[in-house]
Amino acid sequence: MLYMIGLGLGDAKDITVKGLEVVRRCSRVYLEAYTSILTVGKEVLEEFYGRKLILADREEVEQEADNILKDADIGDVAFLVVGDPFGATTHSDLILRATKLGIPYRVIHNASIMNAVGCCGLQLYKFGETVSIVFWTDTWRPESFFDKVKKNRLNGMHTLCLLDIKVKEQSLENLIKGRKIYEPPRYMSVNQAAQQLLEIVQNQRMRGEEPAVTEETLCVGLARVGAEDQKIAAGTLQQMCTVDLGGPLHSLIITGGSLHPLEMEMLRLFSIPEDSSESQSTDAL
Amino acid sequence: MLYMIGLGLGDAKDITVKGLEVVRRCSRVYLEAYTSILTVGKEVLEEFYGRKLILADREEVEQEADNILKDADIGDVAFLVVGDPFGATTHSDLILRATKLGIPYRVIHNASIMNAVGCCGLQLYKFGETVSIVFWTDTWRPESFFDKVKKNRLNGMHTLCLLDIKVKEQSLENLIKGRKIYEPPRYMSVNQAAQQLLEIVQNQRMRGEEPAVTEETLCVGLARVGAEDQKIAAGTLQQMCTVDLGGPLHSLIITGGSLHPLEMEMLRLFSIPEDSSESQSTDAL
Repeated sequence: MLYMIGLGLGDAKDITVKGLEVVRRCSRVYLEAYTSILTVGKEVLEEFYGRKLILADREEVEQEADNILKDADIGDVAFLVVGDPFGATTHSDLILRATKLGIPYRVIHNASIMNAVGCCGLQLYKFGETVSIVFWTDTWRPESFFDKVKKNRLNGMHTLCLLDIKVKEQSLENLIKGRKIYEPPRYMSVNQAAQQLLEIVQNQRMRGEEPAVTEETLCVGLARVGAEDQKIAAGTLQQMCTVDLGGPLHSLIITGGSLHPLEMEMLRLFSIPEDSSESQSTDAL
Repeated sequence: MLYMIGLGLGDAKDITVKGLEVVRRCSRVYLEAYTSILTVGKEVLEEFYGRKLILADREEVEQEADNILKDADIGDVAFLVVGDPFGATTHSDLILRATKLGIPYRVIHNASIMNAVGCCGLQLYKFGETVSIVFWTDTWRPESFFDKVKKNRLNGMHTLCLLDIKVKEQSLENLIKGRKIYEPPRYMSVNQAAQQLLEIVQNQRMRGEEPAVTEETLCVGLARVGAEDQKIAAGTLQQMCTVDLGGPLHSLIITGGSLHPLEMEMLRLFSIPEDSSESQSTDAL
């Protein structure tokens, strides 16, 4: 049996009791290590689970899936995913591969950012299509996701923006020379995402378009959702450029216009004090 | 501290390790019992948690929230919710009430139907606004939710339909006579939802409108997601009227038009055999 097990969002103890039981009895346990992170590392998980974990990076999962599935027809193999196995990234390809090999599979679900963002008080059923915001480079500055934000806002729906993660990336030089040396991981912050968004807004104005989002659009920044030190900040897109939410992972919500009174009341719990962006005082938060 | 704890979707062991530890040390533990159900009852949960649970129905949560929050400023109280505390139903009101009383709160997230539906292979980020389909009566047959389905489909987004649950409902007679006698719980099946949807489609045609959904629209029916005996069936809306998915809870997805090849391939794992709706043979599934 192939078990796809969600680890949830916080630390080692966010696995379900059912998931933990399965992890402890599987012959091999893989940890998917390229789409998200917990607040704790592999070693902490290994100690809590009482099992060695095999790190599976994108390359392995995509190119060596058969290794992962080896003997899963006669024994049990677990594939651990931060969040839910079908959250931000689907792992359909692994399941399809298993099915073709006649290997049965089971999913043990958990919270993912896709549902846990509800903790800010915005109603989950009012979210439209989710978008991803990637790190811009000097030569690659995609704006196309902004159309989806626009569609969502025109229809009164909130937009969850998943922020880029760069893990196991090679520099251009190392890539060309075929050296398997990797850059330190990078996680996009709410500040960076907001700055890129504001640039898109300005570009649209220069082209004479009316942007669907402005500096004053109400947004919510979230950091380390599900962890003990999670932070939520509600304020304008402009404020999102400077709000200090601490370490990764971050997510950003662009609200969809008119809010339910209960949504407003919840967001007020997290509102950024008026003068904090001017004074740059983190105390004020 | 008020702990809002998600129980996930299957049985007693779908609680997280963190959630279980909190449940075992809280002075009072409430179980929210009106928006969803697990495959096991209160007694099974009590035995596994090693704690007595206090059932909280809608009335209590809305009108007697202060009882639930009593002494939560000096001790720990847990409020258990099937799925995630911010899933289909937000429990913002309880959190706002706690905050007003100066009681800190913490959320322990879990899977909810809002993210676990990803298990059918449709990509979660392509879901638009979620709708609820309620049981029609002779005199109350709301169709307004259909506009949202239409908007989603026009924008290429899937629609998750949450199906009605009637728990602790009184008959009109008992209501008038003030007798606290309750009808047996009712859970809308995918069949019932599909039949109501088809009636709306026919009504729209009679009014000369072009319906955004037809008998041939590709849908996915899901039952007991997360449980060992979960069932998923992909087929036309017409087929959803007769497909046998077994006991509650059911959910229905109306797909958003063009699918990604990976989505198609996943749905094929769950497709209803061509002739099953004619033959009514459940074997064929």
